[in-house]
Amino acid sequence: MKSEKMIVAGAVFSFCAAFSALGVSTVAEGKLNAGCEAVWMWYPGEYGIWRGNKLQFERLQWGAELAPFWPSYGFNPVAEFSATFDLAEPEEVEMVADGTLNVNVNRKDCAAVLGKLILPKGRVEIKARVANNVRPPALFVNGKTVKSGEGWRVGWWQKDAQTLPAEFDAKFTCAEKKPGDWKLNHERAEPVEVRRLDGCALFADFGRESYGYLALEDVTGKGAVRVVFAESEKEALDEKPKAPQDCMEWVSLAAKDAKNAEILWDKARGFRYVSVWPVEGDLSIGRVAMERELPRSPRRGAFRCSDERVNQIWDVAADTLELTCREIFVEGIKRDHWVWSGDVVQALLMNYYLTGDWEGCRDTLWCVRGKDPVVTHLNSILDYSFFWYDAVATHILYSGDKLFAEAVHPRMESLIRFIESRLDKHGRPAARNGDWVFIDWAPQKLHNTGGVCAFEMMLLARAYEAMGNGEWEERRLAAHPWGTGNGEWEMEKRGAILRDEVMRLFWDEGKGGLMHLLKNDGTLDSQLTRYPNIFGIKWNYFDEGQKSNVVERILLNDAVMKIQTPYMRFYELEALAALGLQEKVLSEIKSYWGGMLDEGATSFWELYNTSEKGDAHLAMYGRPYGKSLCHAWGASPIYLLGRYFLGVEPTAPGYAEYVVKPNLGGLEWMEGKVPTPLGDIEVTVSNGTVTVKGNSGKGTLIWNGERMPIPPRYSP
Amino acid sequence: MKSEKMIVAGAVFSFCAAFSALGVSTVAEGKLNAGCEAVWMWYPGEYGIWRGNKLQFERLQWGAELAPFWPSYGFNPVAEFSATFDLAEPEEVEMVADGTLNVNVNRKDCAAVLGKLILPKGRVEIKARVANNVRPPALFVNGKTVKSGEGWRVGWWQKDAQTLPAEFDAKFTCAEKKPGDWKLNHERAEPVEVRRLDGCALFADFGRESYGYLALEDVTGKGAVRVVFAESEKEALDEKPKAPQDCMEWVSLAAKDAKNAEILWDKARGFRYVSVWPVEGDLSIGRVAMERELPRSPRRGAFRCSDERVNQIWDVAADTLELTCREIFVEGIKRDHWVWSGDVVQALLMNYYLTGDWEGCRDTLWCVRGKDPVVTHLNSILDYSFFWYDAVATHILYSGDKLFAEAVHPRMESLIRFIESRLDKHGRPAARNGDWVFIDWAPQKLHNTGGVCAFEMMLLARAYEAMGNGEWEERRLAAHPWGTGNGEWEMEKRGAILRDEVMRLFWDEGKGGLMHLLKNDGTLDSQLTRYPNIFGIKWNYFDEGQKSNVVERILLNDAVMKIQTPYMRFYELEALAALGLQEKVLSEIKSYWGGMLDEGATSFWELYNTSEKGDAHLAMYGRPYGKSLCHAWGASPIYLLGRYFLGVEPTAPGYAEYVVKPNLGGLEWMEGKVPTPLGDIEVTVSNGTVTVKGNSGKGTLIWNGERMPIPPRYSP
Repeated sequence: MKSEKMIVAGAVFSFCAAFSALGVSTVAEGKLNAGCEAVWMWYPGEYGIWRGNKLQFERLQWGAELAPFWPSYGFNPVAEFSATFDLAEPEEVEMVADGTLNVNVNRKDCAAVLGKLILPKGRVEIKARVANNVRPPALFVNGKTVKSGEGWRVGWWQKDAQTLPAEFDAKFTCAEKKPGDWKLNHERAEPVEVRRLDGCALFADFGRESYGYLALEDVTGKGAVRVVFAESEKEALDEKPKAPQDCMEWVSLAAKDAKNAEILWDKARGFRYVSVWPVEGDLSIGRVAMERELPRSPRRGAFRCSDERVNQIWDVAADTLELTCREIFVEGIKRDHWVWSGDVVQALLMNYYLTGDWEGCRDTLWCVRGKDPVVTHLNSILDYSFFWYDAVATHILYSGDKLFAEAVHPRMESLIRFIESRLDKHGRPAARNGDWVFIDWAPQKLHNTGGVCAFEMMLLARAYEAMGNGEWEERRLAAHPWGTGNGEWEMEKRGAILRDEVMRLFWDEGKGGLMHLLKNDGTLDSQLTRYPNIFGIKWNYFDEGQKSNVVERILLNDAVMKIQTPYMRFYELEALAALGLQEKVLSEIKSYWGGMLDEGATSFWELYNTSEKGDAHLAMYGRPYGKSLCHAWGASPIYLLGRYFLGVEPTAPGYAEYVVKPNLGGLEWMEGKVPTPLGDIEVTVSNGTVTVKGNSGKGTLIWNGERMPIPPRYSP
Repeated sequence: MKSEKMIVAGAVFSFCAAFSALGVSTVAEGKLNAGCEAVWMWYPGEYGIWRGNKLQFERLQWGAELAPFWPSYGFNPVAEFSATFDLAEPEEVEMVADGTLNVNVNRKDCAAVLGKLILPKGRVEIKARVANNVRPPALFVNGKTVKSGEGWRVGWWQKDAQTLPAEFDAKFTCAEKKPGDWKLNHERAEPVEVRRLDGCALFADFGRESYGYLALEDVTGKGAVRVVFAESEKEALDEKPKAPQDCMEWVSLAAKDAKNAEILWDKARGFRYVSVWPVEGDLSIGRVAMERELPRSPRRGAFRCSDERVNQIWDVAADTLELTCREIFVEGIKRDHWVWSGDVVQALLMNYYLTGDWEGCRDTLWCVRGKDPVVTHLNSILDYSFFWYDAVATHILYSGDKLFAEAVHPRMESLIRFIESRLDKHGRPAARNGDWVFIDWAPQKLHNTGGVCAFEMMLLARAYEAMGNGEWEERRLAAHPWGTGNGEWEMEKRGAILRDEVMRLFWDEGKGGLMHLLKNDGTLDSQLTRYPNIFGIKWNYFDEGQKSNVVERILLNDAVMKIQTPYMRFYELEALAALGLQEKVLSEIKSYWGGMLDEGATSFWELYNTSEKGDAHLAMYGRPYGKSLCHAWGASPIYLLGRYFLGVEPTAPGYAEYVVKPNLGGLEWMEGKVPTPLGDIEVTVSNGTVTVKGNSGKGTLIWNGERMPIPPRYSP
């Protein structure tokens, strides 16, 4: 078909039918946010899940893309938006949809003509149905006072009983920039070193871990090449054209009759090194470069101190975290590329101290949760379903995002129903068919399926608590503070019962801590691990006497199996820091993360065994290059330093209240910034003096055992 | 970004890892269908629902597109395909996905390189994960013996407990032609008459009802026009530029600096007339034309007889049906454009006698059912949920599609659970909040919410029966004949209880038929309607004495409220024909459908009131042009003539067995063809002689009260 397609007015609406002043319904009041910018809005979670799918489907394995093995959920192709406004005078509004749009004002359908919608004076009830078959429907409304954003509700069909607050993202304020088109910014980067070798057409080192689109320049001829993406030089050069099993991240690219062409691989990848190998025909590649993606968020958090080694660690941790925070926060940028719930808990906590990227955190929480029906644990892992509740509760505390708190609640409920359908007859989280009990990567198997782990029970208790309205442990568990109260107290009760059971069933006075596993025969397994004891500290399971025992006889006892992953190091060091052992924590940070730096890391790893040297560090999962060398959970010093050295912590959602309890941990001085939804909090500790600047919220400084309100308050 | 994008080999796989002979699992046996063509395959229902969304989202109303008000469901972005083969020798296969593809052979992931997958000799278990974020994932596999199609299973994630037979469509046999790209064929059509009038830039008549893409040719200037799509000349010329409320189907089109451009409107529409009205600026339109879409299926069915009027009616009915059968079968091609379950029952029955387009019927059944969760009745109409079961059972009987029978069963179950959740305390289908009890368009309200209608109870009984394995009424209700038997007999029992209750509660000996409504106080409403009595005949509720009473005192009694819609005329005439009253039926067909022809119809209407004349026929729903003039349910003579005059009817799924029971109904002669999955059945009745040619299946001719096997069997 020959087609010079016209611009069609379907997206821009103009008042046409005579509106009636009748027909006011009871939908939520639209906020008259004059002065605020209009933002694109959609059904809660849809873009988090959709973007998450896209990223996760692009995991690369031997030239093929590998989508997750757990369920991936589609989007609802229709969204029904509504809001009610009281207008002092008639108002012209622009309405733009990503999808087809039909507007109903005061219960009459409107006509779409060239122009804009003119709303009448008085009470105006707007309904807008947006339909899109290829990506989540979205709507943008912009008038003088009537704007899309807070105050709008959205359902997935006309009579959706769970109509939720519309979701949006402060960065999508332009009618022309639809949220489905969003990509991260990028800039050209050239390799710092290029080599041509026997059999390898081209080898390039981009100098540091990067994420972006590979460009082959000056491509001439006809044929095919294999491009290997690598995090180590050894991997990039170990390519075996006939059986490329060891290097897993590569693609085959083919061209016909190219003449000095530039070829841009249209999917962004994580790598530092690239090697290009001829496969077929005669294709010459002049140069390689990349469009390096820039961090998705500004680095609002900061940390500097008297110890340069610690500063280096903080910088590389910040690089690591930024690299893993794509449109959705993936765990490893090269090998894994999937989004894991337990890992996300930590990536979010780090973000609260580095970027304050609340939307990125929120979208990642949606991505990891997915939708209904729930047919397996998140990522198929028992602990990861429970961890998600911890992440949600913590996110609400840090972000103060009450729209998310409301929107996510139905999915907290449906997941807990799934979880409960799989508890054993005592109401305890035993692993069922197909459930993966992860806990941690460790030299010994952490879960014997013939029983229940203390660790899992504690996580489930936390999940129950996160469903509640209650305030445990200095309000850090204040999930859903604007909740409906419907059924939540029952959840808290179940959480409390589990807490009691954990202590009753697993506490071993002789060992001075919590044991690991309760076997099906009702007796305790002899295995003693750090895991339940770390979380016992984190979530206040112990009295003072028990606490001392746990610290001395387990946490500081080298005879108890050591933790090798930065993942569990996170919680271990957090527990020590929560106990005030900052000097110990600092020393561990310096030796553990410093050790990776000594091994040449430009980003932190999935796993670090301090006793290994050189190339041994590249191996994991039985593969010589199986380890992710840029792994979000490797970046935990960001969190530890911000939360337990600068000592900044919200105590009411969104930093409406917070405490600052600095601890130098042996440093001479330190200074830093922590992002909050109300502005940055700046902390300087030097020469026995603490200076805190907080932009708003009710702050309390705790210093030398004293509590005092944080002065001065200043306006930006 | 500058980008000359490469072709990437991600879709073409080659054997790489060393395969193990171990790892054979229990997935379904792949059929060694050497000689058959490979076909694209997908998760059952996904393309029916996705294409249905696309079409339905394009309903046009005052320049805007209006998606359905009931729930629209998205697609699953991942599909897991699997099959097992026993190969006598190694085999090379081509694998192409619509989406990302990862292949696992004998429990080892494969590498994707330039080339093909080479399968080893022996038992080969193939798994393939396809992920697609913008349309349903699909897979095409083509080797010498290993081909996609029958024998493959598919789940929506790795451990999907309901893994179903993969679905496919015989027309997608080309690797390059992905099912998501499919569009109907079209050809250029010029108007038969063009006028230029005061205020109207252009008026064109395309001579008959059509469906296609409008083209504006020789467009010059800058500005905007409104294009009105109309089924009547009056509507096309009644456009009021300032308040176009009466004509509902129009779009605004704008152009900048066009110079002799051709502009093709990229969404196909139903219309016969088009008018173009200047709105803004100065845009001159030289000519209009259209790309008229061709029928989606060949017209395999045929009917000719001694009465030319009846032949005309059959022809226009066939045109009508073909026009409404788009990628999915919509009800009305202009106004409505949505897909309605009750209407689909009839469109499918007509297709069984005209096109034998089993895939189109199947996809439409999926479209109308949607997915889970079920949150409202289909199309929000109580009767329409029940009717869907009738359509499914009937489709299985006519098509013999056992893959569909298996695949649809889980959704039959989940819908029946929803239905049962809304029954009253007696287990009867009372209307709940928001349920629409439709029954028929009629001058008087057919449902008083204070009670239960006999009609609804009979439909629910039929739904229960359709869930079963049983064989009622000469096996016409043989739903799910390959069913698992799991729970189905319970369903049949519930159906039987309802049947008994209908007779016990609604039969009025004095009135000689079934009454309409049982009020909440337990007494019968005095209203007597044809509806339950028609269905009582259709589904054998009556003994011979009751039957005579119903015919004489209700069906042939002009004092009982007449039926005006072709929708219920369908069942009324079917009931008469089932009673052997073909002469009466023929006379009704000639006067009712003939009456529409007399009014100038080139396709049959949504509603016809024989007492109205001229423009009054255009009005409906309180709008002067609200009536659909090309409505699938208007085409029922196709079914009535094929089923009750030629008398062809399957009695075992897929015409494995069938009867032919011709009835001239007063005609001198008739001849025709009926499509079946096993070939056409040809029937000729002339000079007291019947000739039947059936290609296969066990046929029985019933003629003059005698039953005889159908000779001759011949091969094509």
